[in-house]
Order: sequence, then structure tokens, then C-alpha cells
Amino acid sequence: MLLDADAIEPLARGCAVLGTGGGGDTAAVELMVRRAIEVHGPVPVVGRDDLVDGLVMPCGGIGSPLVSFEKLEGGDEGLRLRDEVERTFGTRVVALMASEIGGSNGLMPVVWAAQTGLPVLDADGMGRAFPEVQMVTMELAGVDPSPAVLTDERGNVAVLRASDGRMLERLERAVCVEMGGVASGADYVMTTAQASTAVIHGSVSKALRIGRTLADADDPVAALGSELGAVPLIAGSLTDVERRAGDGFARGTATIEGLGPDAGRTVRIEIQNENLVAREGAHVLASVPDLITLLDAETIEAVPTERLRYGQRVMAVGIPCDPVWRTDRGLEVAGPRAFGYDLDFVPVERARA
Amino acid sequence: MLLDADAIEPLARGCAVLGTGGGGDTAAVELMVRRAIEVHGPVPVVGRDDLVDGLVMPCGGIGSPLVSFEKLEGGDEGLRLRDEVERTFGTRVVALMASEIGGSNGLMPVVWAAQTGLPVLDADGMGRAFPEVQMVTMELAGVDPSPAVLTDERGNVAVLRASDGRMLERLERAVCVEMGGVASGADYVMTTAQASTAVIHGSVSKALRIGRTLADADDPVAALGSELGAVPLIAGSLTDVERRAGDGFARGTATIEGLGPDAGRTVRIEIQNENLVAREGAHVLASVPDLITLLDAETIEAVPTERLRYGQRVMAVGIPCDPVWRTDRGLEVAGPRAFGYDLDFVPVERARA
Repeated sequence: MLLDADAIEPLARGCAVLGTGGGGDTAAVELMVRRAIEVHGPVPVVGRDDLVDGLVMPCGGIGSPLVSFEKLEGGDEGLRLRDEVERTFGTRVVALMASEIGGSNGLMPVVWAAQTGLPVLDADGMGRAFPEVQMVTMELAGVDPSPAVLTDERGNVAVLRASDGRMLERLERAVCVEMGGVASGADYVMTTAQASTAVIHGSVSKALRIGRTLADADDPVAALGSELGAVPLIAGSLTDVERRAGDGFARGTATIEGLGPDAGRTVRIEIQNENLVAREGAHVLASVPDLITLLDAETIEAVPTERLRYGQRVMAVGIPCDPVWRTDRGLEVAGPRAFGYDLDFVPVERARA
Repeated sequence: MLLDADAIEPLARGCAVLGTGGGGDTAAVELMVRRAIEVHGPVPVVGRDDLVDGLVMPCGGIGSPLVSFEKLEGGDEGLRLRDEVERTFGTRVVALMASEIGGSNGLMPVVWAAQTGLPVLDADGMGRAFPEVQMVTMELAGVDPSPAVLTDERGNVAVLRASDGRMLERLERAVCVEMGGVASGADYVMTTAQASTAVIHGSVSKALRIGRTLADADDPVAALGSELGAVPLIAGSLTDVERRAGDGFARGTATIEGLGPDAGRTVRIEIQNENLVAREGAHVLASVPDLITLLDAETIEAVPTERLRYGQRVMAVGIPCDPVWRTDRGLEVAGPRAFGYDLDFVPVERARA
């Protein structure tokens, strides 16, 4: 499969849905993908069986979306990441992969693949977006997160080797704050053999499919229901949006008051870069690792948390996560308790009942 | 010259004087030096003319002394720093050098030299201790501060390449905070050719000489006067000590009220890891880059800022810094304004008059 100019809009739309509010705003990066494909040509998307021996480099942006929205990249971050990874490992990189398919982080590897002439693996490490470095399927599979590389638009570089994924998260976050709040990074670099089992395959195709489905759908929530098993949570308007940044994350809450059939209901969304928990009163409607996505009722675009605004009409849906996240180890790494919530995970398709 | 067991105490005493309150408490590291020399034998101290071609590795600890006092090193940081530097540069390290001769950072390279079998260069990058990474003579000489290596007792490693010395300071500080508030590091790594002009030579010999002089002196302040041109600032007791940590530095103030001939006088010392400014009312008695050292009146040991305590009897002296710090570029990097003070530097030997 080749990603050409026609694929960009649906891919971006699908990544935004899987971004569950985070992973970076796709709007700015969509332009970068368009330019990269114009200059360098379409980007091949390959499956696990197409890979030759070498390294698969998971990559993307790290930092607060509140910052990255305003701080576009210098242009050679992807080349620098690839070069640093090859120098550090002494092995060539044969494919890039989105660490997270959600949000602009599903698109950045396409830009860097165009620039480096490498293919993108049809896969990612989350099947969505998560806020922290170690919340990837490679962590569950025992891939070493280190060495990791971070760089920024001024050419600063950090090569990090951490005792474990959580320590790497702390080091990357600290470095990214000093790099201006957002950086480009590669971690959990693996061999093609490891990549055949340690990642979620088909993520790029899936994002494309979601984007195309939504573009054609008369009833987008129903379409996401049949495509992804999505469950409607509430349709209404945003009556309160509170955000704060500062520690390398964007944290906040959003309150949706129901309209139409949902009149009288109130759902509150809790945010750490991504939408983490949706509550109706004390009842949890959906929570990590399941996806919570807010679609703008007019544009049918998934809204990144940093673009939520008072009065906006939205439809909130819950989407079942990849089954790997519902295992004991998956919930340990990215379940509600991994984010400090004292609650047991209940699959969204059951919680709503 | 060989540093053997007999040299440790005077070296530590001299490093403490040159630490100007910072550079880390020598007490704990003195024990490490003793053990390292017992196990590995005496450490050669070499001059610039004894160096073979290769790299000189400036090294030491970075972080808040409030933390390092309680967090002893794991033991293989020096070996790891040397290995990482050699791997990163692709060249062998032929000598270690104290980034700063002041405080425990004047001693750590001796430990690491014993462990790695390398000599210590009779030199340092400050002629004292300073709180920030870029406050070294190598910065004045145009040596590239990067790549730098940081590591900790758990084996975490960061290799950093920064756009300049100030950015490296920010990255190192952020990483060191995540490493638990203190880390071991090497930066401004240089060739032996660069080291012949970019550093302050004779620093280890000087610290040894200060230590031996103080041990024998009847009048320690007078002895420091003839040895270093030290100027007495005040003799009295500490009536107020205020400290705070948190951003990777130990900040605070200490107030000394005069006793005996100095009765009626009050001098206030402002601290950022090191003693930065000594004021009597509005009058500045001494300031960076000159040294401000507080000697305990009973033990005649220089007191690290983290050991200052209410009621302690001290003698404060100002010591002229190396002339390189009094140049325009030296003052730009490490003068009062580099620390945010809106005051012009006045040499301590003139300010007291």
C-alpha cells in the first residue's frame, strides 16, 4: 500500500478518532505530511511479512499538546532520530512505526518516512494514544525501552538508557520540558523479528478505514459502532472546560451536558493529554485503556482536548481498546490504576449497560 | 606526584576551602577516596606535559548537595562515564580532571581514576566550585560542551548534545533531578592539546598545599592570606540559616553576627550551592567569581553550605578567583549578573577597603 495525497485526509481523520483526545492535533501535521509527500513522493506502508532484517524504529512527538500546537518542527528531526538510532545500535533502521497511532503521532512517522526514504510499518504500539512513554505493547512484550533518542528543532539531542520504561518516561519528560515542552523521540527500538509479535498490527490501515467510513457515514456514531464496536456515551454541549499544563502534560476536565435524547444527563471527562475517564455522577461510563473520543457534532471530526471549547456541540463515544490492554499486564501498565484512579476497569461495552 | 593515603586529608581540606561552600561535602567522599586508594593503589597526578594524545575527561557530581550528602554512589559511575565517553567519541580517555576542584567534586575524579587506572590531571575547570555546568574555563576557551554523559547509581545513562553550554546545563539539571537529585557526569571533554590551554593548571597541587598549610597554621586566616591572598570578611556566629532545595540547586542565606573585634557587624551570605555574595548592609564585601569561604572557628575546616548551623562560630574569608574569571568573558559567564544580581563585580581585595 502507498500513502499518497488522497490518503492524507482520511488517515488524519482516523488518527484523530484513535487519539482519544490526545496524541497531538492532526491539523498542523496534516500539512507537513502533504508537503513531505509532494516533495518525496508517496510513502510505502508495509506489513510484518514485508520487512527485511534490521531495526523497526517506533517514533513520534512527546510533550504537552498545548505546546506542540504552537511549535512546529524544524524539519530534520526524523533524519536525526534515524541517524542517532543507527549510530547507537550499530544496525540499520528498515522501517519507521508510530509509537502511537492516535492523533498527530500517527502522522509524524509518515513525514519522517518520506524524508528518510523508509517505509512505515502498518502497526503501532498502542492502537490509540496514551500519555506516557511506557504505555506501549512493546513494554508488555518485554522489549527494552532503551536506548531512546530525543531531539528538538534546534538540534539538541539526548540519548537515554533507563533502568526501565517508567524511568525512561521520567527522563524523556524532563528532557522534553527543557527542549521547550515538546520533542521528537524514538524508543523501544526493536528488531523486525521482535516487531512481528510486540506491536499492534494493521493500525495504519485501520485509521485510514475509520477516516473513510466517517467521511461517508450518514450516522457517524453508528458507523463507528459497526467499524470499531463504539458505544455512544452522550451527545450534548460542553459547559465547562478546564485545562492546565506545566509538568509536560496537559491535564484538565471537560463537562458535557446532554441535549435531545440525552437532555438532563451530565458527563464529565477527565484528561491527561488523552481523555482518560468518562463519569456520569459516580458511575464510570468508560475509562482507560478503552478509548473515549469526542466528535464535533458539525464537522464529525474527533476533537483534540486542547481544542475543546465552551458551548461546543459534541458526541462522546467509547471504543473498546485492543484486547492486549485488557490482560492483567495490560491493565497494570495502562489501566485506571496506572493513572492513579482507584477504580477497576470495566469494558465500555458493559459499563454503559 | 602520587596521591597516596597521606594526601587524602590535606587534599580534602583544601578542596573544601576552594569549594566556597559548595562542590559537595568532602567528608563522605574522603572515605571513598581512602577505600579506592587502598584497593587500587596511589593515583598519579600528571601535568600538561605528561599527557599522551587522547581525551581529557572533566567529571564530577552534579546536583543539590542537600541530596548528595545522603545518596552515596553505586560504585561504577566512573567506569561507566569513561566507557560512555570513549564509545561516544571513539577515542580513548588518557586522564580524568575535576570539572571543579572545589568540594567533593575535587575528590571524585581521584576515586574514579583509581578505579579506571587513569591519572588525574593537575588542573580543573573553575579553580573553585560553581553551581552551573557552563561555568568552566573550557566554556571561555570555546571547547564544545557536548556530548556530555550523565549516569547514576542505578545505571541510568543520558548522553546529551546541546546547542550550547547553558542549554546543556538545563538538560543536565533536568536529568539529574529525575535521577534522584544528584548524578555523576562528564562534559566539555577535550583533547590533550585543548587541555593545555583551556583549563586552570595546578589546581590539585594547590588544594593539597592549602590543606597542608591550614593543618599547620597558628593563624589560619593569615595563612590563607599569604597562600591565596585571602581577605578576612568577618568572624562571628551564625544567627540565621535558611535553606531550600527542589530545582536541582540548594539555595538559601546565612547571617553572621560579628564577635570580638567584629562585634556589632552583620554579614549576610547568599547561596546557590556555593556562597555567591557577602553583604554588609548594602555594601558588597565579596561576590562571585571571587571565593567566599566560611571556616569553622574550632576545626578550621571550610564548612559546606549544607552543614551551616545556627550558633556555629565561623570566620568568613574572601579569596581572589583565578584571573580568567575577571576578564569580560569570565564575568559574563560567572560574574554577579550571571546569577541574576544587578551589581558590578568588585575584586574582594578592593571591596573590603
